[in-house]
Order: sequence, then structure tokens, then C-alpha cells
Amino acid sequence: AWQNGPALWRSAFPRRRPESHKYDYGHAVVAGGPMTGAARLAALAALRVGAGLVSIAARPEDRVIYALASPSLIVRDCAEPAAWEALIEDERLNALVVGPGLGRGDTAWQLAHAALATGRATVLDADAVTAAEGRGHALFRAVRGPVVLTPHDGEFRRLFPDLEGDRLVRARRAAERSGCVVLLKGADGVVAAPDGRAAITVNAPPALATAGTGDVLAGTIGGLLAQGMPAFEAAAAGAWLQGEAAALAGAGMISQDLPERISQVLRGAAFS
Amino acid sequence: AWQNGPALWRSAFPRRRPESHKYDYGHAVVAGGPMTGAARLAALAALRVGAGLVSIAARPEDRVIYALASPSLIVRDCAEPAAWEALIEDERLNALVVGPGLGRGDTAWQLAHAALATGRATVLDADAVTAAEGRGHALFRAVRGPVVLTPHDGEFRRLFPDLEGDRLVRARRAAERSGCVVLLKGADGVVAAPDGRAAITVNAPPALATAGTGDVLAGTIGGLLAQGMPAFEAAAAGAWLQGEAAALAGAGMISQDLPERISQVLRGAAFS
Amino acid sequence: AWQNGPALWRSAFPRRRPESHKYDYGHAVVAGGPMTGAARLAALAALRVGAGLVSIAARPEDRVIYALASPSLIVRDCAEPAAWEALIEDERLNALVVGPGLGRGDTAWQLAHAALATGRATVLDADAVTAAEGRGHALFRAVRGPVVLTPHDGEFRRLFPDLEGDRLVRARRAAERSGCVVLLKGADGVVAAPDGRAAITVNAPPALATAGTGDVLAGTIGGLLAQGMPAFEAAAAGAWLQGEAAALAGAGMISQDLPERISQVLRGAAFS
Amino acid sequence: AWQNGPALWRSAFPRRRPESHKYDYGHAVVAGGPMTGAARLAALAALRVGAGLVSIAARPEDRVIYALASPSLIVRDCAEPAAWEALIEDERLNALVVGPGLGRGDTAWQLAHAALATGRATVLDADAVTAAEGRGHALFRAVRGPVVLTPHDGEFRRLFPDLEGDRLVRARRAAERSGCVVLLKGADGVVAAPDGRAAITVNAPPALATAGTGDVLAGTIGGLLAQGMPAFEAAAAGAWLQGEAAALAGAGMISQDLPERISQVLRGAAFS
Repeated sequence: AWQNGPALWRSAFPRRRPESHKYDYGHAVVAGGPMTGAARLAALAALRVGAGLVSIAARPEDRVIYALASPSLIVRDCAEPAAWEALIEDERLNALVVGPGLGRGDTAWQLAHAALATGRATVLDADAVTAAEGRGHALFRAVRGPVVLTPHDGEFRRLFPDLEGDRLVRARRAAERSGCVVLLKGADGVVAAPDGRAAITVNAPPALATAGTGDVLAGTIGGLLAQGMPAFEAAAAGAWLQGEAAALAGAGMISQDLPERISQVLRGAAFS
Repeated sequence: AWQNGPALWRSAFPRRRPESHKYDYGHAVVAGGPMTGAARLAALAALRVGAGLVSIAARPEDRVIYALASPSLIVRDCAEPAAWEALIEDERLNALVVGPGLGRGDTAWQLAHAALATGRATVLDADAVTAAEGRGHALFRAVRGPVVLTPHDGEFRRLFPDLEGDRLVRARRAAERSGCVVLLKGADGVVAAPDGRAAITVNAPPALATAGTGDVLAGTIGGLLAQGMPAFEAAAAGAWLQGEAAALAGAGMISQDLPERISQVLRGAAFS
Repeated sequence: AWQNGPALWRSAFPRRRPESHKYDYGHAVVAGGPMTGAARLAALAALRVGAGLVSIAARPEDRVIYALASPSLIVRDCAEPAAWEALIEDERLNALVVGPGLGRGDTAWQLAHAALATGRATVLDADAVTAAEGRGHALFRAVRGPVVLTPHDGEFRRLFPDLEGDRLVRARRAAERSGCVVLLKGADGVVAAPDGRAAITVNAPPALATAGTGDVLAGTIGGLLAQGMPAFEAAAAGAWLQGEAAALAGAGMISQDLPERISQVLRGAAFS
Repeated sequence: AWQNGPALWRSAFPRRRPESHKYDYGHAVVAGGPMTGAARLAALAALRVGAGLVSIAARPEDRVIYALASPSLIVRDCAEPAAWEALIEDERLNALVVGPGLGRGDTAWQLAHAALATGRATVLDADAVTAAEGRGHALFRAVRGPVVLTPHDGEFRRLFPDLEGDRLVRARRAAERSGCVVLLKGADGVVAAPDGRAAITVNAPPALATAGTGDVLAGTIGGLLAQGMPAFEAAAAGAWLQGEAAALAGAGMISQDLPERISQVLRGAAFS
């Protein structure tokens, strides 16, 4: 396994090109749920990391909340899973983020399945991972395109209860089994691809142990996928950017500070 | 064609005068639509570039969203096209911005026509341009005062499907045909006037390829028109300011960062 | 007439004292109206200039908007003039700001009268001044305590149509007639007291000619009155602080930038 | 009595540990009431001082307001005292803040009692203290775990009308009687524990005499309790951090500035 850093994914990192417009950088969409902060953090991160457009699929009662997260976001009406399916029929939505703030219940499962059915790049995080407890194989069978799973330890155990070994071993086996890139979050975030590649993230400061940082990470990866970055590289780059952004913020950081810090990391980096 | 820069429009750029009050700097109004971020960005940009007052004509369900964009904005109730017509009977509203966030459908067409009928300075952007697809001549016949069209390439093709040649040639022909100043957006924004003047903008960084920057640009031009700047100069100055503002923001910029950066550009500039 | 500056009012400027609590610095209340930005700007300015507590009397439909202006503000339900009268029966509300954003109509007149009837320090601005057109004497007869009127030239002419002479002369005569401190706004803001004192403000940059700066000024004066500063000194200090705050902000300033800049002026000043 | 400073509680101050996740830093919950600014300030302070998660228990009509305070907060539906009782059955909510913005009436009393009944760490502030007027013994009998009372002088007198002596003496007697840590707020905040320990805070600048600073303080203490800091140390550290944060902000500070300044204090401090 490699140590996660720009050397690993620099050549695949999206670059702004002189002759281009926003549609060249993709359109990420985040499924919004009752815990609205999560989708807001994910969407802002996707925008900050360079997605050309970012939409939030919003329950009607949350429209004002999402609209006020940023005038740069697009808020789409999405009352229920059927509306999500209709929304993502639009193939321009080329990266889907499902999980943050969806809550327990069957909705997350339905949204995740609809996302996978499109074959487009998808991040499954948080409640979308939890919703697959006991039915992981049904989820994995639905995988048709690049998918990144971003469980923390508890979510990982629910989805892969039988896997043993250290975090690296377990992440690799999970990637192999699921056909997804697996980012096992934690102090040393492990990124593993179905083809056996793996990287360990070592730049995450402990300040990241605060509510909402996982949502930011899911959105960052979604934003990179929207720009056409391959799943393994996007997951690794997302995890590394998160660590750098948190280090810039320092002690007392909270998750709402991170999206702007990602922009700051990009300004100081040689790869974008 | 000239290269776009302050030398081209410095003498026409609005200046704050010692003995003056807000009404001396005009009152821009932005037509608000269902994608509320667009009108918010446009209105904030108009304010930042110096319009004395800026109003958003708001669907009632969007009132809270617009009010929270800034306490410096005025939110006016405007439920439908008829309300827009009534609102802009007020001649103090001397610059009208129509298009950002209006969505597809006939509303944009109606609002644009009502704006043109006033003979006051008008910016037609985004959905107002698209709405004229296949009926451009009807739109152009309605032009009575200074009008700036701000299409990107796709919108331009829909409005002028028969025009050929490079971007400069096409923008000039479109300006001639329409009687409007045409700002053909893109990496090298071309500004063309019906009288044959044209300028090419070369300071736009690729960071501008992100959602909402066109809305900021439309609002910036609207804010300059409100201050009495002629249409060609306002369009050119707006495009140049946008480029400078984006350069200041750097990598990771999103459109919500731009209005404040316009203020920063003005502080550093010799012309305002 | 003096030139307005700290020498004129430094000794009366409120100071934070070591052994004190928020109730020692008064409680300003701003009457909120349909143009919600105005009361928000006034309330934030009152808070920034040091009032111990600041409330907004809110129409119920504006509660969310006002609450989101700042968690440091108090939002009080106030559906109609009768509710305002009941609210200000509380004698702890020792400075009342009436006018910003109230709109034309009789409401401003009723709120102003109720405020004057308390005999407590009151700022009458904008629509509260306009509402007295043609019935100024009825307004002036109701004056029982310290009152600051803050008309701009147009509002002044409506309230004192017969007064002639230069701005200083007119402001002095208006103060004498009304029994109020009159701050005649403009590039050279004139402050005149009924006892004949007068000052001319010369530090206002032309950037102040933008929507909402008058609301900030009314709130600043209200915040100083709440802290027990006499009316003439409060009006003069408010006008001077406004000029300094705008100069700090520089070109591209909009009114929402001012309240925080007032804090910055206080940090750099020797008098607070 | 000691002088309050890091020497007193540095060893108990929560530290971010390399191998940890957000659940290791506790989950603070703030009871939200009709004056919504108070709970927002408290919740943001709890988050900034390092609580792993922070929730606001919201009246349904306040959901949008709380959600917009920060995407890093969790908003929980909580229509009435019975819903609060059900909510805090979740033992992961390990620090409860009751009082800020609840208003007069019996609700504060009911919420406080339900909080004490859990035996988990609790801060009782403001209206929760006032609500116990005349029935302090019933409140104190309900104490089962670590509790911090944070009255200002007026609230203290209502709860302990018979106690005499200087502030230190009275705070100590109140702590002894109540079985709670008592933080008697004021220019020299006194912290007293039931076991006789006491500290006097001397770093509070007079700028703290402004609305909402008490809410920030209650939240800060709640955030420290959530991380497992003992009650006396948490109260002392909270009071000291507040003073440092206000000193950083300087003149013109308002309470909404404080939560971010707490992060800044932590970045500059040697103890976190």
C-alpha cells in the first residue's frame, strides 16, 4: 500500500483549462435529507473542489435552508425517491452523492439503488452505507459504474461484518467483494480499489473528529468524480485534501470551516 | 477590435462624487426566478459595483431567501409578469436585469419584452436569451434603448443559428442585427456594439468556469448601466472586472466569492 | 458651528466600565417594517456601537428574517401599532428607533407618536419623517424627551417646506422649531440642537451614497442614546463614526459592511 | 480561592487524540426556546470548544432558523417538554444545556428537571435558574450528576435570596447548598464547587457586557462537559476562555463574534 499524497493522483487531478466552460467540469448532485447540514456541507465541498455545477435534491420543506447555503448552488425539488429517479435521468448529472443526512429508514436504500442503476459515478456515504446492512450483496450486484463507499469503522462493520484483519486488509477485501472503491475513514484513512491498489492517508489531524467532516469528504469526492477523476484517485485525493484543509484550520476547527479551506489548499498546491 | 481593458472605458466609468446621494447612482432591478441563487448573485454584484439601490423582484415564496441575501438589497413582491410590468413603470428603476435563474418557459420572454418596452437600459442574460430562440427578430424589434445581450456559446447559437465565422465576427454581426451590445461569453469574452466597435477580453482566468459567474456578470453590467455608463462600455468594464475579481480569488473560487472581490478590484483600481 | 469630530463629544461617549453588566448599556429597540433590510442594518449598528441589548419589533411574517440577521439580536413579535405601544411600555427599552423600512402609510406616523409619548430617547428617520409631511407641528408638540430627526434633503423639505437658507441655517431653524436634534444628512451632514449648537460633518466619503447607510446611521445613534449619550452628542458621534467606518471600507463598500467597520473604528479610537 | 487560569484546569482540558472519532468527544444538546439567538450562540460555542456533536432541540417553528445557524449543527424536532424527555433518553447525549432563550414560564422548569433526572452533565443557565425561584430546594434535590449553575447577580439573588457576604462567600455557600458547581457571573466571575474549591476569573474585559455572552458561556461549558471535563474545571475553563475570546475581539465586540474567537484562543493555547 502507498502513502496517500499528490504523487499518487496528481496526474489525474482535474485542471482548469483555458478554453473551457462550466459544463466541462461536470455536475454533481447531492441527495438531501432531513438532516440538512450534511447535504449542505457535501454540496459546498463539491463546488469548492471544482465541480462546474452542484445541485441539491431537496425535500420541499428544506428548500429555503438549502438555497441559503450558497447562491452558487442549485436547489432542485425532490419530494421522494421517485422524484430522485426522475431527476437523475438527466445524464448531465454525472456524479451522485447519496447518504449524508438521509437518516435511517428505507429512503437511503432506494436513493442509493437508483443512483447505482444509472451507472454514473456515485459516492455512497453514511446512511446509504448503513441502509445496506444485511443486504450488501444486493447493493454490490447493482454496481455498474465507478462507486466510492466511505464508511467509518462502525458503518464498515455493519456492511462487512465478517471481514477480519487490520484496516488495510479489511478495506482491500471489501473493495474486492463490492467492486467499489472503499475509503475506510478514521485517523489513518485507507483507500482500496477492487484491482488491489491501496493507499493510507496519514495527514489527517485529530481536529477532524467533529460532526460533519464526513459529509464534506463525501462531497469533495463527488466533486472530483464530476470532473472525471477516476474513483480510486478521487477518493484518495479527497481524503488528502480533507487532511490538508483541517491542518490549515487548526484547533477549534468545525466542519463548516472546511469547504473554504479546500479552496485555500488548491491555491497553495502545485497540482491544480 | 481592441483588447478589453480600462483604457477602453475608463473615462466612462462611474465615479463617486463628493456632493451626491444614492439616487445619483441609479436603481437596478433584477427579475427573480425559481433558481434564486442567480438573482442574488446578480443583485449583489450590481450593488458592489456601485448602483445606488438594487431591488430584486421576487416571487412571494422566495421573499425570505432574497431578503437574507443582504440587508442592503430591497425585495419587491412580484408574483407574475403583470406585477413586473407594474413594478417597472417606476422610471427610477433605470437598469433592468432579466434572465438569471428564470428557468425555461414563457415567463422569461414576457419579462424581457416588458423590460425592452420601457426603453431603459436592460441586460438580457441566460434564460431571457434562450427564450428568444426562433423569434429573435421579434425581440430585436422591441429594442428601444441600450440593451446588452450576454449569451454564452450555446445561447448564442440558439439566438443566431445562421451566423458563421469566428467569435469576433459572429458577435459583431449579432450586434448589428440585434441593435444590442452583444457580449459573447467564454474564455475570450467578445464585446461588440451595433456601431462596429468591438473588444476582446483576455484577463478571464479558467476559474470562472463555474456555476453562477454569468449571473454575477449580468448584475455587474446592470449595476454599471444604472450609474449611467453606456452599454458598450458597461459590458466591457463588467467583463474585465469579472476577470480581475476571479484572478484575485484564485483557485477554488466559486461564484459567491465574486461580488466582494469586485469591491476589492475597485479599491485597487485607478479609475473609480 | 463646529467641525464634527471626537473633540466635540468625546467626554460624553459611552465607555465600558469594569464593574458593569449589559443592562448598564441600555436596550435599544428598532421598529421593523416591510423592508426588512433597514431594521436589520439599524439593529446591528446599535449593537456594534455598544448598546447592551438590541431588539427588533417584528411583523410575524418577518421573524425568520430578523432572527437570521444575528443571534445577538432579540426579535419581538409586533404585529401592529397597538403591539408596538404595548411593547414599549417596558421602560427598560430606553432608546427607540422608528422609520427605517416602515414604508409609506400611516403606520410610521402611529409608531413615531407612540415612541414620542414615552418621553424616552427616540430616533425618527426615513419614513417616520416623511409621514409627518404637512403635520410637523403635531409631531413636534408630542416631543417629551430627547429626539433625533435624521432627514436627508428630500425628507427635510417635506417636513420643513418653508425653511430657507443654507443647510446649516435650515438645520438650526428646524431644530429650534421642532425641539429635536436635527441631523440633515448629506455629503456635509449638519447636526443642530434646539439650544443653538451645531456641527458640520466633513469626514463622509462619497462611498456612503448607497442604499442602507441611513439605516445604519439611525441605528448607530439609537445605540448611543441607549447608552445614555445626550442627543446632540449622539447624533454627531453617529455621523462621524459612519464616515470613519466608510473610509475604512473604501471603494465598493455597501451598507452591510458598515456595522462591523464601526467596531473597527471603536478599536482604533482613543475615546471608547 | 484561586485565580482562574489554565494552571487550574489544564490537565483536565480535553485534548484531541490521534486515534479517535467524533463520538469520543461527546454530544452536547441545547434546549431551544422562543428567543432563538441564545440556543444558537450556545450550540456554536459548544461546537467550537470541541464537542464531537452538538444538537439543538428545536420548536418546529424554529427549525429553519436553527438549521441556518450552521450546517455543522444537528437540529432535532422538539415541540414540547415531553419531546425533550424522549430526546434525552438517548444516553449518547452526554451534556445538556438548559436555559438560554427559554423565556419565563414553566417550560424551563420542566426541561431542567428532565435534564437533572438523567444524571448526566448539565448546565442550567438563565431562564432555567430564574424558573427555580422560590423552589430551589426542589431543584437541588433532583441533582444526580455534575451540574453547573451559571447565574448572574440578579438570577443568583432570586435563587439564593438569603445568602449574604461577598460574591465569593455567596457562591461557595450556594455550591454547598445546591450540590452544583456555581458560576456567579460578573466582571469577576466566581466559580465554586460543592467541595469548597473556588476560583475567581480576572480576565473578563468589560466588552463582555453585551447581550448573548452568557449564552456563549453556557454553551462553552456544555461543550467541555460533553468531552468529559469535570464540572468545576469545565466552568472555570469556560469562563477563562470567554475572557480571552473577548479580549481578542476587542472593542465593538458582540456575542456572535465569540464562538470563532474561542477557536482562535484554542489555536494559540498550549493546553489543547
